[in-house]
Amino acid sequence: MNETTIVAAAALQQAVSNALAAAGADAESVSTATRAMMHASLLGIDSHGVRLTGHYCAMMKGGRINPRPVPKILNRTAASAILDADDALGHLAGYRAMALACELAAESGVGAVGVRRSSHLGAAGAYALAGAEAGYIGFATTNTDSMVALFEGAARFHGTNPLAFAAPVPGQKPWLFDMATSSIPMNRVLLHRSLQKPLPEGVAADANGHPATDADAVDMVLPLGGTGYGYKGAGLAGVATLLSAVLTGTTLDPDFIPMYGTPDDKTPRNMGHFVLALSPDHFAGRAVYESGILRYLDALRGAPAREGGRVMAPGDREWETLARREREGIPIDPDTARFLGFA
Amino acid sequence: MNETTIVAAAALQQAVSNALAAAGADAESVSTATRAMMHASLLGIDSHGVRLTGHYCAMMKGGRINPRPVPKILNRTAASAILDADDALGHLAGYRAMALACELAAESGVGAVGVRRSSHLGAAGAYALAGAEAGYIGFATTNTDSMVALFEGAARFHGTNPLAFAAPVPGQKPWLFDMATSSIPMNRVLLHRSLQKPLPEGVAADANGHPATDADAVDMVLPLGGTGYGYKGAGLAGVATLLSAVLTGTTLDPDFIPMYGTPDDKTPRNMGHFVLALSPDHFAGRAVYESGILRYLDALRGAPAREGGRVMAPGDREWETLARREREGIPIDPDTARFLGFA
Repeated sequence: MNETTIVAAAALQQAVSNALAAAGADAESVSTATRAMMHASLLGIDSHGVRLTGHYCAMMKGGRINPRPVPKILNRTAASAILDADDALGHLAGYRAMALACELAAESGVGAVGVRRSSHLGAAGAYALAGAEAGYIGFATTNTDSMVALFEGAARFHGTNPLAFAAPVPGQKPWLFDMATSSIPMNRVLLHRSLQKPLPEGVAADANGHPATDADAVDMVLPLGGTGYGYKGAGLAGVATLLSAVLTGTTLDPDFIPMYGTPDDKTPRNMGHFVLALSPDHFAGRAVYESGILRYLDALRGAPAREGGRVMAPGDREWETLARREREGIPIDPDTARFLGFA
Repeated sequence: MNETTIVAAAALQQAVSNALAAAGADAESVSTATRAMMHASLLGIDSHGVRLTGHYCAMMKGGRINPRPVPKILNRTAASAILDADDALGHLAGYRAMALACELAAESGVGAVGVRRSSHLGAAGAYALAGAEAGYIGFATTNTDSMVALFEGAARFHGTNPLAFAAPVPGQKPWLFDMATSSIPMNRVLLHRSLQKPLPEGVAADANGHPATDADAVDMVLPLGGTGYGYKGAGLAGVATLLSAVLTGTTLDPDFIPMYGTPDDKTPRNMGHFVLALSPDHFAGRAVYESGILRYLDALRGAPAREGGRVMAPGDREWETLARREREGIPIDPDTARFLGFA
């Protein structure tokens, strides 16, 4: 029963939607959460993929997440707004916020939307990508539960706070860059623990903040840049927190009710996010933008690789995974396969 | 003659201004370039400090940089614009762009300004800081000359492309985070070469892209994240290029006429930059923002440090350097001391 099950994308999408609907989610909650989880599962970001369906269903049933939210737009100007998400699934909040940012950017060149009273966002790249698919440079970020030490710190402080960017490319899949501001996710630690395999140097620490490679000894992960330059990863995590939580007046990373492992499935977590859209039409113009990004990506993909290496643009690996998984199906873990009725 | 000279800030500022004026710079060019270089020299970012005065003077005399520019604002909307800098010093362009972004954000919550036909920006943090000093969350970036390998690449591709953010903090110096997207600057390689001291692991590579610690063998630096996670630093460098060059229609990193080491001091480099300002007033409101950032920084600065380490917020080290240098003076290298008349 520890084998992964391979499921065709269409069947998986239907099963996820059915499960969300059965947990009481309204149509927009179903469609946005399914879209965001399928984005992650198809592109190989399995930590944020369909495996979370059961968790979201439980939180909607418990009351932490509102399955039938009525979000409100507040403080709207020509280019900015706050979206009060009414404790919605973060996916509904994220897609609505990006759609609004694009609408503002269509008029004003840029749109910036802060989100409050939301929940777990899933893969931030899903919303940046939605911006790019609409023709804009998209940016999305969120703060999350404390998991990551500060530079030279001895306690979990920031979340793995992602920064995600996407940009449209004429005739091609978008440039897509979705990074955690830690080197590795906490999931990776758990995986190495179960495999009894050491971690790389400089990515995790024990409970005293001392860098550790023994997964059993690890209590937190380290910011991007490791023991030498981790002040950069910590600063970037801070950018996510400033935009997502401080600007919107929502929960700081160390103050979150944990996503997992608490008996409390009732209290909303008041998560904040931040999204931005930029319109190429309003700067040097669409034609100049399009020829520029094509020249940039041609130069990048044509740059020489070191022996045994491969040069790729952000997103290239994910688009390869997408093509393979659309063709061959999506591997899902045993618990998720059982929950969704595939095992 | 290899000793550094210590010069009082006021005297140094005057000497820099005099040198720029003597090279033909108009009043705004003098004041902005002096302000940006003094920012860097006072905060300890000596690579972008007053040592560049002689270089800028030479480029104004040669004609690459326009000492009496007439910048124009194009494509202005409620929240965005292009600033055509007329081949100005990058400092004049950067401060004007941020002032315009703040003006737009005062009305529309966010202001985004792309800059074209500019030149070397200096320390990007200077402009982010100018935004924070005006009460906004400021962001500034630029692309620069190719120095940094792609992840697994074997050639210089991106510049050290900085991302700089600053945020106002009531009653305190701003939160200030100005990072290169490589682990180290190329300057560091030159320093280690002259000291015959090995570099840390994973920050530089030889001409074939193989990671190298022997400074004499190093041809390029590696993106933040090193040999394991350098795709993140490379992606962040790409963000700088997309915003600064692709969105504005200016020069891509590999296409720049080199800043140094070319006999051509006449041809403008058409550098692009990008700045953004966000108004706390327009999201959750100023009072919520202010209490949030104070709580965030209190929690951060109060977080436990690992043995022998120290936890600091971005900018804390720089503000300490500022206080010391305001008190004790600024160390300058022999060439710069001679150029400015202090040796």
